[in-house]
Parts: sequence; C-alpha cells; structure tokens
Amino acid sequence: MTNQQIRVVQYGLGAIGTGVVRLASRKAGMRIVGCVDVNPDLIGKDAGEAAGLDQALGVPVLGSIEELARGGRDESADVAFHCTGSHLQEVHEQLVEIVRAGMNIVSTCEELSFPRRRNPQIAAQIDALAREHDVTVLGTGINPGFIMDTLPVALTAMCADVRKIRVSRIVDVGTRRRQLQAKVGTGMSVDEFQRRASTGRMGHIGLQESLLGIAEALGWPTDDLHHSLEPVIAHAPLQTEFFGIPAGHVAGLRERTWLEQDGEEVLALELQMRVGAPEPGDTIVLDGTPPVTVKVDGVQGDISTQAIVVNSARRVVEAPPGLATMMDIPPVSLAPTAAGA
Amino acid sequence: MTNQQIRVVQYGLGAIGTGVVRLASRKAGMRIVGCVDVNPDLIGKDAGEAAGLDQALGVPVLGSIEELARGGRDESADVAFHCTGSHLQEVHEQLVEIVRAGMNIVSTCEELSFPRRRNPQIAAQIDALAREHDVTVLGTGINPGFIMDTLPVALTAMCADVRKIRVSRIVDVGTRRRQLQAKVGTGMSVDEFQRRASTGRMGHIGLQESLLGIAEALGWPTDDLHHSLEPVIAHAPLQTEFFGIPAGHVAGLRERTWLEQDGEEVLALELQMRVGAPEPGDTIVLDGTPPVTVKVDGVQGDISTQAIVVNSARRVVEAPPGLATMMDIPPVSLAPTAAGA
Repeated sequence: MTNQQIRVVQYGLGAIGTGVVRLASRKAGMRIVGCVDVNPDLIGKDAGEAAGLDQALGVPVLGSIEELARGGRDESADVAFHCTGSHLQEVHEQLVEIVRAGMNIVSTCEELSFPRRRNPQIAAQIDALAREHDVTVLGTGINPGFIMDTLPVALTAMCADVRKIRVSRIVDVGTRRRQLQAKVGTGMSVDEFQRRASTGRMGHIGLQESLLGIAEALGWPTDDLHHSLEPVIAHAPLQTEFFGIPAGHVAGLRERTWLEQDGEEVLALELQMRVGAPEPGDTIVLDGTPPVTVKVDGVQGDISTQAIVVNSARRVVEAPPGLATMMDIPPVSLAPTAAGA
Repeated sequence: MTNQQIRVVQYGLGAIGTGVVRLASRKAGMRIVGCVDVNPDLIGKDAGEAAGLDQALGVPVLGSIEELARGGRDESADVAFHCTGSHLQEVHEQLVEIVRAGMNIVSTCEELSFPRRRNPQIAAQIDALAREHDVTVLGTGINPGFIMDTLPVALTAMCADVRKIRVSRIVDVGTRRRQLQAKVGTGMSVDEFQRRASTGRMGHIGLQESLLGIAEALGWPTDDLHHSLEPVIAHAPLQTEFFGIPAGHVAGLRERTWLEQDGEEVLALELQMRVGAPEPGDTIVLDGTPPVTVKVDGVQGDISTQAIVVNSARRVVEAPPGLATMMDIPPVSLAPTAAGA
C-alpha cells in the first residue's frame, strides 16, 4: 500500500457522520479537507466543533458539494465519506454530485452495499459515471457491508462445498442511541408496529441486500426469496434511557430473509434488534465440508460502521474505477492511528 | 466475475495435491488439463487414477513442466495448483518454471504465503518474473494463508483501533493423517523432540509468515519478534491409529510467536497441534474499540487447504500480475460445484 496522505471530505454530520469525523481526525495519513451538511444550524461552523471534537479542524461546514467545489477546496480531495441516508433513491443525486466532483466515495447508504440486484438502473448509472470520472464508489458499514454478508462469503473459502448458510445477528439496543431504539419500535403497541410494518416503515434496511450479495457471490439462484418481520413483545415492563416499555408492548424486532431451493431453506439471515436481548452476538453457520461455525462477540454497530468507513478509505483510493462492493476489493483492515492521537 | 472455464494444471500429487485434484474435478467451470509429479510410480498414470478418483481424467501424469510444455498441453492452461513443498528454497525453481510456462499459480508452499519479509530476494524475483509473464502467483492454505493471518486482519476492519491481537489455533491431530501426527512429534521422547527442535526440524512452517503478514498489513513494527516451541507431554498413555504414546512422551507441540512493543506483547499467534487436544478450534481476540472475540469451530486443515486452493483459482486468474498474498486480492469464496458432482 502507498503511504500517501488521504484527503477526506465528510458528507453528512448525523450520528454516524460525526463519529466518522472524530475517528478520521485521529488517523495517521488522513486529513479532513472539507465538510458538507444541509443542516442550517451546522453550516458555517468548524467541522471539528460540529462533530463534537474539542479542537477545530480549520474546515467550515458548507451546505453543498457545489459550494465546496466553488471554494476550490475539493480539488485534491481523494475520498468523500458519505453518511446521509439509507435509500438509494434519496441519496442518488448526492452520489452523482460527489462523483462529478472527482472524489472516490465510501458511503453508509445501506442500499448501496450490494445494489446491483435491487437497484440495477441506479447501480449501472453510478458505475458508468464512476468509470468516466476515474473514481470508485463503495457502499459499506458493519451491516450491511460486513458481518452478515462479506464475512460469511469470505469464510466459505475454507469449504469444499456448502449446502446451507445461516447467519444470525442479535443486537441489544437497550444501551444504544435513541434513534436506533425508536427505529426498531421500542415501546410501541403491537398494533402500531404492525401498521408501520405494513407500510414498509419498520425493519432494518439492507438485509435483503446482504442476502442477494451472498447469493451473487456464490452463484446461487434467488428466485425463491422470502422475508418476514415481526415485533418482539416485552413480557414484563422494560425501561431504557429513552423509552418505557409496558408489558405486552414492543421491545424490538425480529427480521428474517431467506432463500429456498426446491422448497428447502439454503440461505437465511436473521436479525434481532431489541431491548434486553439475552445473548447478543453474531453467528455464522456454514453447513458444508467441513461444517464451520463462527461466533463473533463484541461488534458494536455504530462504532464498527464508523471504523469500517474510515478503514476502507485506502482500499477505495487504490481500487480500479467503478461501483464496487466489499466483495470486489481486497480485505479492509485497521487504518493506523496517528502518534499521540 | 467471468464465467469462463478455468483450465488447471496440478503440480504435486501428495496428500494435499491429490485432494485438490479430486475437488477440482467436481467444480463447475474448472477442468484439469495437465498433471505433474516427480514420483516415477505415478508418471504415465492417469491423473484421476493417481488422485484416487474412480474415473479417469484423460490426463497423464508427466514428470516435469518442461515435458508438459513440450506436449503442447499447457499452452492454454490458466492456473497451476502447486502442492509440493513448504520451503521457498526447495520449490523456487518449480515456481519459476511454471511462471515461465505462462501459468498463474496457487501454491500451498507455506513460506510463499507472506514471503516479502523472510525471503525478500526470492519474493522480489518471483514478483518481477510474474509481471514479465503477466501472471499472478499466490501462496495460500488454511494456515498459513487464512485462519491465523488473513481472517484476523480482515476482522480489524470493524475496529476504530486495536491495541493487541491474540490468535490461537488448537488442532487435535489424533484423527488426522500419519504424516501430520509424525510432524508434530507424536510418540517421540522429549529428548528426541528437543534434539530435532534445536536443529529446526520440528514445528509448523508458516507461523512467522502469518505474524509478519499481519504486522505488515497493520503497519506494526516487527523488531521485537519472539518465538517458542515446546512439546506437549502425554500424562497418560495415548493411542492413535498410527502411534502409541507412552506416558511422559510427546503428544504434540505448542508453538508460539509474538511481537512486543515497549516490552509489551501486542500480537501473538499460538498453535497447538496434539493428540487429544481438549478444545480444538480457532480463537481470534482483538483487544480494540470495540473489543471483538471470534471463535471458529470445525475448520479441518487438509480439507480446508484443498478448498482454499481450488476456491482461489478464479481470483488469481483475474488478479493483476505479480506476487500476491491473500490480503492483496478480494475475498476468496466457494467455487460452485458442477451439477451432479
């Protein structure tokens, strides 16, 4: 790997984006040279201040990539960390703008993780535009992007054959941020949960992307795809820092997506995100030759997503141009921390 | 990934090589088009017969790459699976010959897994020659190559920082092949073990390659490198299919290599290979933010090495030319099995 400094633009200063700024500012060979957010309360502030750092970064938050380009600040930026939205439809234009400005992209947009199947047109357009501008666009994060897709696929390297794959992720959201607790329905009545679920406003974004990413990597057919989403009910009252959950109300959700072949389940991803989950952790079971079981403890979604974004920067700068997934690039690994940081 | 057929030459028909032939013959889009071994008992036989398959492959075992080239058979071979020796010094000329014949290489030579530190001259020479001939040379296997090096490095993607890494692999050799049991000293007296150890004839080949591969990927200094090797003593008599072990004799070995920084251990790899190991499996501990522990059960060294060789073929065919490690290429994953195989 080269040791050249990576010049970073941060796009989006929400919970993940501010964490990315704080982490990137501590990394050796990485410098934040620009920052964009649409929030008027942040525009004009120093990016360090806006991200909750106790030192200024000397970089003002601007309202758009266009403004950044006008200031001439982005001219030599290598990569934009894009952390604004989960759906490709809503962030598509932002991605196009960044690519046109000549920057590589590492994005936490969940639907960008493995976009070729569910959003083929946008994926093809971004790929063509990225090639035209000689940059790489990568969607990543801990989930989707790594723990329920890239890691299981990478583990199949050890197998002579694999008949079935089962991946399970159990997250205790009780100690996590309010937004995440709200997202999984914490404290809702079951009726409210079901009403929202029926309009597609509940559930994790990216689980089907993970499933399709695995299937694509292994060449498995995806015709017989299934999905379920149900609330996890609190049997006794529960309390988090942000929500009270009466007994009988929702403590979180259990989402499942799976593929069948000849009526048999061959690939299943299950995600539980709930307050008070008894055994949080990640389990990957490869029913193959040899049979392999992997148990991962300690992954923390927000921190690990911020980490994987920052750690991906060098790979994305070095990758051939186009739209890439985590399965198209060499393994991302820890970026070194600056001395004294 | 392309779907073009991969034409394979097998070089070496020992325990691993014959397994590779058997596995490759079952894979979709893969065809064995040549076979080389120096054993006069095998030369002239059909490769399928020599590998213990119950069908012929229509490919004779030849005595050298030169002979293969003379027969015109290698002209369109894409990749050679090279499974002959552990030390670069002893296989160097074989690798050179294969590269000169224009084939990509996936090799199980342990010292080739991360050769740049311990064999810089040979590594540089192979790299230059591979670029000249527009092929890629990869050393891989389960260990070294994946479970104690590439996988731990890939897992650091999830961490904002990592202070220490500890990797432990415990193998019960009691049910494994004779050669492996002998290699770890099964049944020897402690004196015999120590005498052989003192002349460098005991221990796993590749553990230091794994350590240096991790350190290189993370940019960690390697000045303060340590190594230990000790016999594991049988407290009661043990019996395998091949060896009787009196109490007080050797049941296997425990090898450890580690890096220190400022007198503190920051990276440690421990390998136990012994008859009757109580809790076989692989453990990877990342002392970082977040702290991550990964436990892997079920990996079987021989099968998994054969698998990873065959599964690497497509990545090596697609990779840019030169000497590559598993950390330089996108994740290797399960190659599809042919219908009915």
